[in-house]
Amino acid sequence: MATTLITGGTVVSSTGRQRIDVLVDGERITALIDPAAQPFGPALADNVDEVIDASGMYVIPGGVDAHTHMEMPFGGTTAADTFETGTRAAAHGGTTTIIDFAIQTPGERLQDTLELWHTKAAGNCAVDYGFHQIVGDVNAESLRAMDELVNEGVTSFKLFMAYPGVYYSDDGQILRAMQACAANGALMMMHAENGIAIDQLIAQHIGRGETSPYYHGVSRPWQLEEEATHRAIMLADVTGAPLYIVHVSAKQALEQIATARGAGKNVFAETCPQYLYLSLEEQLGAAGFDGAKWVCSTPLRSRAEGHQDELWKFIRTHDVSGVATDHCPFCMKDQKEMGIGDFSKIPNGIGGVEHRVDLMYQGVVDGRISLERWVDVCSTTPARMFGMYPRKGIIAPGADADIVLYDPKGHTSIGLGKTHHMNLDHSAWEGFEIDGAIRRVISRGTTIVDNGIYHGKTGHGQFVARALSQNLI
Amino acid sequence: MATTLITGGTVVSSTGRQRIDVLVDGERITALIDPAAQPFGPALADNVDEVIDASGMYVIPGGVDAHTHMEMPFGGTTAADTFETGTRAAAHGGTTTIIDFAIQTPGERLQDTLELWHTKAAGNCAVDYGFHQIVGDVNAESLRAMDELVNEGVTSFKLFMAYPGVYYSDDGQILRAMQACAANGALMMMHAENGIAIDQLIAQHIGRGETSPYYHGVSRPWQLEEEATHRAIMLADVTGAPLYIVHVSAKQALEQIATARGAGKNVFAETCPQYLYLSLEEQLGAAGFDGAKWVCSTPLRSRAEGHQDELWKFIRTHDVSGVATDHCPFCMKDQKEMGIGDFSKIPNGIGGVEHRVDLMYQGVVDGRISLERWVDVCSTTPARMFGMYPRKGIIAPGADADIVLYDPKGHTSIGLGKTHHMNLDHSAWEGFEIDGAIRRVISRGTTIVDNGIYHGKTGHGQFVARALSQNLI
Amino acid sequence: MATTLITGGTVVSSTGRQRIDVLVDGERITALIDPAAQPFGPALADNVDEVIDASGMYVIPGGVDAHTHMEMPFGGTTAADTFETGTRAAAHGGTTTIIDFAIQTPGERLQDTLELWHTKAAGNCAVDYGFHQIVGDVNAESLRAMDELVNEGVTSFKLFMAYPGVYYSDDGQILRAMQACAANGALMMMHAENGIAIDQLIAQHIGRGETSPYYHGVSRPWQLEEEATHRAIMLADVTGAPLYIVHVSAKQALEQIATARGAGKNVFAETCPQYLYLSLEEQLGAAGFDGAKWVCSTPLRSRAEGHQDELWKFIRTHDVSGVATDHCPFCMKDQKEMGIGDFSKIPNGIGGVEHRVDLMYQGVVDGRISLERWVDVCSTTPARMFGMYPRKGIIAPGADADIVLYDPKGHTSIGLGKTHHMNLDHSAWEGFEIDGAIRRVISRGTTIVDNGIYHGKTGHGQFVARALSQNLI
Amino acid sequence: MATTLITGGTVVSSTGRQRIDVLVDGERITALIDPAAQPFGPALADNVDEVIDASGMYVIPGGVDAHTHMEMPFGGTTAADTFETGTRAAAHGGTTTIIDFAIQTPGERLQDTLELWHTKAAGNCAVDYGFHQIVGDVNAESLRAMDELVNEGVTSFKLFMAYPGVYYSDDGQILRAMQACAANGALMMMHAENGIAIDQLIAQHIGRGETSPYYHGVSRPWQLEEEATHRAIMLADVTGAPLYIVHVSAKQALEQIATARGAGKNVFAETCPQYLYLSLEEQLGAAGFDGAKWVCSTPLRSRAEGHQDELWKFIRTHDVSGVATDHCPFCMKDQKEMGIGDFSKIPNGIGGVEHRVDLMYQGVVDGRISLERWVDVCSTTPARMFGMYPRKGIIAPGADADIVLYDPKGHTSIGLGKTHHMNLDHSAWEGFEIDGAIRRVISRGTTIVDNGIYHGKTGHGQFVARALSQNLI
Repeated sequence: MATTLITGGTVVSSTGRQRIDVLVDGERITALIDPAAQPFGPALADNVDEVIDASGMYVIPGGVDAHTHMEMPFGGTTAADTFETGTRAAAHGGTTTIIDFAIQTPGERLQDTLELWHTKAAGNCAVDYGFHQIVGDVNAESLRAMDELVNEGVTSFKLFMAYPGVYYSDDGQILRAMQACAANGALMMMHAENGIAIDQLIAQHIGRGETSPYYHGVSRPWQLEEEATHRAIMLADVTGAPLYIVHVSAKQALEQIATARGAGKNVFAETCPQYLYLSLEEQLGAAGFDGAKWVCSTPLRSRAEGHQDELWKFIRTHDVSGVATDHCPFCMKDQKEMGIGDFSKIPNGIGGVEHRVDLMYQGVVDGRISLERWVDVCSTTPARMFGMYPRKGIIAPGADADIVLYDPKGHTSIGLGKTHHMNLDHSAWEGFEIDGAIRRVISRGTTIVDNGIYHGKTGHGQFVARALSQNLI
Repeated sequence: MATTLITGGTVVSSTGRQRIDVLVDGERITALIDPAAQPFGPALADNVDEVIDASGMYVIPGGVDAHTHMEMPFGGTTAADTFETGTRAAAHGGTTTIIDFAIQTPGERLQDTLELWHTKAAGNCAVDYGFHQIVGDVNAESLRAMDELVNEGVTSFKLFMAYPGVYYSDDGQILRAMQACAANGALMMMHAENGIAIDQLIAQHIGRGETSPYYHGVSRPWQLEEEATHRAIMLADVTGAPLYIVHVSAKQALEQIATARGAGKNVFAETCPQYLYLSLEEQLGAAGFDGAKWVCSTPLRSRAEGHQDELWKFIRTHDVSGVATDHCPFCMKDQKEMGIGDFSKIPNGIGGVEHRVDLMYQGVVDGRISLERWVDVCSTTPARMFGMYPRKGIIAPGADADIVLYDPKGHTSIGLGKTHHMNLDHSAWEGFEIDGAIRRVISRGTTIVDNGIYHGKTGHGQFVARALSQNLI
Repeated sequence: MATTLITGGTVVSSTGRQRIDVLVDGERITALIDPAAQPFGPALADNVDEVIDASGMYVIPGGVDAHTHMEMPFGGTTAADTFETGTRAAAHGGTTTIIDFAIQTPGERLQDTLELWHTKAAGNCAVDYGFHQIVGDVNAESLRAMDELVNEGVTSFKLFMAYPGVYYSDDGQILRAMQACAANGALMMMHAENGIAIDQLIAQHIGRGETSPYYHGVSRPWQLEEEATHRAIMLADVTGAPLYIVHVSAKQALEQIATARGAGKNVFAETCPQYLYLSLEEQLGAAGFDGAKWVCSTPLRSRAEGHQDELWKFIRTHDVSGVATDHCPFCMKDQKEMGIGDFSKIPNGIGGVEHRVDLMYQGVVDGRISLERWVDVCSTTPARMFGMYPRKGIIAPGADADIVLYDPKGHTSIGLGKTHHMNLDHSAWEGFEIDGAIRRVISRGTTIVDNGIYHGKTGHGQFVARALSQNLI
Repeated sequence: MATTLITGGTVVSSTGRQRIDVLVDGERITALIDPAAQPFGPALADNVDEVIDASGMYVIPGGVDAHTHMEMPFGGTTAADTFETGTRAAAHGGTTTIIDFAIQTPGERLQDTLELWHTKAAGNCAVDYGFHQIVGDVNAESLRAMDELVNEGVTSFKLFMAYPGVYYSDDGQILRAMQACAANGALMMMHAENGIAIDQLIAQHIGRGETSPYYHGVSRPWQLEEEATHRAIMLADVTGAPLYIVHVSAKQALEQIATARGAGKNVFAETCPQYLYLSLEEQLGAAGFDGAKWVCSTPLRSRAEGHQDELWKFIRTHDVSGVATDHCPFCMKDQKEMGIGDFSKIPNGIGGVEHRVDLMYQGVVDGRISLERWVDVCSTTPARMFGMYPRKGIIAPGADADIVLYDPKGHTSIGLGKTHHMNLDHSAWEGFEIDGAIRRVISRGTTIVDNGIYHGKTGHGQFVARALSQNLI
């Protein structure tokens, strides 16, 4: 197989940065070399098939987006990105691994739903992928099936405290699923919102004629995210299960998580770029029906209440473990528009798989987080959290050669007609400017994006069977 | 220079563990190599001067002990280890870098005291060393001198809230020194105990005839450590200085630190093995005068109050950043004995520079911390905290070849006549058994300890000029 | 009507104690008089019908027990005390007002159930009584009926987060009922335990053959009380309803309440003597089936975990507002015995209406609370909390002459054949000794108990229509 | 002596309000009477010397201002109000008892300074008065003298953590004084600001030419109040002394106090109207030198930071126990003007003894606190806290007839030429409008103010020897 030497760049890890040359042989990194030492002689560059000049660039492990929903059925429609289009957009954005959610709805066999998702993804992906499993029907059979899935490399299971009648699990079901996780070592993932109470509020708002997208946010107050977060933590405490709260948007929910972590509990939080940059007032409250673009759950939070700044702080304090996108794209036309006159019918979701690495890098430029923390939340910790490290998430010998060259002197404009490869008729991030640029994206040794040009191919991406989480306290 | 290949071992870092071969050329690591890939051909082992078989062993970065007091004058005597004997003991214990404290007392020029410590250490050390500077006389001149020292690689300054009349700084002096650190980027280190109040309690105990070593602990209650810790945090908050609290022993002090860290403040804690394993009741309360062996400040805390378990927890939650020894050895004969009949005259200090890596490894065996966290608190984080990373604290190309081979199937018995190379007539750790063993210690490419035999030489150790702390939130 | 002068005693209130003579005319207190002043001449004692010598005694407002269940149907049986026997026992114990719970079960009209309880009580009570209303079926009609009940003097409504399928309300129902309370000013009372999760644990214990009374406690861990408490607080926060958590037994639940109160929220806690004195290990864990005597929910908590001491502390800090009994008596024979072989079939409840004032006075003797706080939690605050003050809960002109003379030099032995007038074949408090004694109990001007002899009569007690809570922050 | 019947009013206490007639005989209240009952016949009104019609009014216990500084020497000048003028102003404002501070400075005998203050006050006061003792020189002799003073009715001692070189006590002195209080039961009062650090900041501001009154506030940041508060709490915890923090202005200091109280510690907070209504930006930051009017320590806090609202909240949560004025009046002319060009030379203090009861009543009108809490913080709790209850602080038989008739339909305009009887050339409260009015003020049975007209006489006020605090948890 081909050999490549990436030379002149600065390798960044969770703990530091350093001038290191990276030797790739086929799909894996085979050596890290001190450029000042030339231990194998100056001739090494002459003996590889390709030399990539990374001077002035950060050499970072490819992004791991632990939360995507490709081709997801929701409310009578389907998320607009297929595994093909979605992973291609991910590649453009420096993400070389996604973890998507297989979904069980009541009445289905858990194994069948995983198989279905395998079918959707196999042969269609531009980058590697794994699966979490949503358990929409916790019962004796699905509980047993969880053990089986762990053996097949699906080591994390998601439940919903929201969406009664759809994915909702009651507290007894949650308790039992957590007991299963405590026994088999899998990670319990939780959508933590009190959906039973929220549904009452939604009905009341609709009943009062408050039907615009803004009321989507108002009907899901922070108290009901904080409440469900705390409830999940206590149920986990009763059972001993490790717990990962997805897409946290309320600062008070994070305070609950921080308290649990301070007590030494295995509780982890994920947030998403939209909760760091966007707000209830500005986006959900946009004129007319435009706010529908940003209808997702948990909702965007009030800037006046200061959630966004607090979330950045919690990334710094490590109470947020990782940043994912919750990529769940729906077009305005025919999809979001289903909710004109009734916000509760707007498909929930924001497309963002393409922009996470850039948006988080802007946090470095803005002094929000360190360069090391950027790599940590975008790649290393997600890989560790979900049992893919050190194959993913690190520049190290033996690891997959998933490598991004990031240019701190570059610039990226986000928006339609600029950088936008998601199958969406709008961009939730239109107009965002990033003081940096992705120059090259390498997946398992193959350059799939070079200066914005896609060189990958459909089906290059492979399924990653995951081990148990390596991130437990 | 000589080349060495360390093969077959498992390299452990802060974030994970992996089978990696390590190539050393002269004093530095020059390459990390995937043993499964043999990128430079099977012949690599044949082309190096030495091949070290690390099969079954952990290959870890050499320990960094950020808190030692060699040859320290204290209360009319001098700490029993010279830089020569102390660093040799460190080498035996897998510690390849120490940071010792240069001490200014009132009336001295800061630069002169640093120079004196340079003189003491130069040419005498078995392993590399750096210096913190104790500022015992905060005034306009010493404040200016702090900037100078930063440029000379001394980037951390320690003050004392204890020991009135000796090293004590009042809150106004602390404020001014912190302002200097906020300006020049240095790290403010603090001995956080309310010495003014403690001195009253000491006098009262002595006055009541409570003169045994046990009352050393009783006269320094946790409240007065917690109080000073909180005070230091608030003074740091006023000034913007980063703050590192040394040798924290009270769980309540750590709660204060955890609260500050949760608020996103640059506050860091160090603890020591003695606070994790030993106690007021068992050691300080030993029969007769035996407790004098464990007289140190902050004091050992009550096991009944549960400090020890909580400290382990705070290591897991990262609220303790690093573990150092506060190595400050005094013999019982002629030294500790000065305090017979008056505990306040016992020289303060415990010798432990030799045992830190082993004692913390036992925490891994006991399920207290992960293998990765062991490496992190013993080496990586101290190196980052004190501006020596990635030269120290990591197995990476370009780093100094400070490497320890640790054998998880070995066994170590601590005590006189067993593993005890410190210049002490007793061991504070007599009888401790470790389920692991240090097999080989390499300092800048040279094997200085091999299976318990010292191969190093006096003067091998070099001064490490340190950059600013890389660990700020 | 008859006039009475109570002379020589020390009147105790929430804020202090003082030598005051009390003049009663008919059913009400008409004057408080400085005994040193004799403002109406020395002849006053000669001009009243009766002079009661209270020398050496505390003159306190009659006890208000805000939580009783007389004649309550539960699990196929009925609480053993009728309103007649139960209020007579209350009288013996210095309690001159009870508030009992009218119970709606699904399908019933709220007003009908209140009417039924009026029927049960009217003409049968030895002391005055009011009603709370349990809303077991929150729906549009019952929500409307709540307003009606407020106008009829029933100003507090209780929901259950436990007992699915019986009294349980889901979070949407709770939200709506709280909205109703926020609008009409009534107090929302909550049984805060996560019954959905608890039912799973119960089934698991029974399934494992863990059927003894001890497992009643184990199956209701503190986490699930703490969780529900926090959930109720957040739902109240969303709606603006004042919230009163009944029978709190877990210290962690009280910490949640204390946090809410510290934030200025209208959240109140009630505890009961059983949670202050008894424990999981000693009582529920008694040999054989004996533990069944103490099966109640929330359950007795572990003494090893320290709940009891913490609860006393929370009384001192005012985070516990009042102490009630949750009097719900079931005999061992035929009733508790229903649960032999299956703890989940044991009727839940402890009888204690007779002993609350004594048991709390022992807390004064033991140095747990002040004399003033005793009066406060037994009488004044419950009266204020439930809208009966200043008719009840205070020795003041215009108040009902509900007065207890308490003798601090007396002694009371609790148990069958001693002081035990409840209709129960056992005493949950057998063997408790109190360093004080109730000497005389006066209800609306009539002495109903004198030195342990009952002088009251069935039907003396009247319904008290209550105003809104006066205790809101 | 004369008898008076106050009839038709609503008596308000800490726990409630009620229509009660009050009978006064000479200096004391001798009976409370139910107006509906006329127990002594309709002729009672005919048999008293005076009948006061209190219809429509609140009848409340006279205010107790626990923090005044009459004739206090400070920085080379003396507070502008003498005991004569200051207590007359107090009388106008419904305050019938003050507690002033006797001041020891280093070198003086404690007893002598108390004697001096007795001399200043005796025969000059319009209302009753007691003394706290400031201990400015903690040493073996003054510690012994504290016991003596307790026996003479001075049961509270104040130390300063601010003002080094003037009243400042170091932590060792504080520790010893607290030990004395723990032994003799007296209350330790604390001015909690880190004066050592503040003095550095003051010097730095002055050095930078930042000399205006605004910088008085900036040089005393909340962190240094919070810090000292926490320090005092921990020293109290070590010693067992009850602790009362005077004039708390920072919300973070109150959070520390609330935390201590939540843990069951005997820690109490006082705040003042200026911290509830005024701010750093508006008053201290007034144009020119005008801000000098509001120079006091602790300083007014930033409204942008939200201290004022939080302080009101802490009154509601009872974490603030009482509201005093810290009345310490200095005229602009010749006094405040000493600090033109150097804020540190401005005499510290605000005059307010006249307006506390009104200003706090406005809090009732504004919905900040309940009517009961108003009476509680202005009178009842201060009386209990400082050992004067039930002689002061309550409308009860046997109590001193210190009574205020407050008219909720009245109106009061504060300012020079309106209500302003303090000996000050300006009012810190100029322009404040109160939706209520003091109609009559009765001190020990004598009407001293009637509809704004002073009827009292110099020397009416008597010294009140105080018992130990009755407010300990």
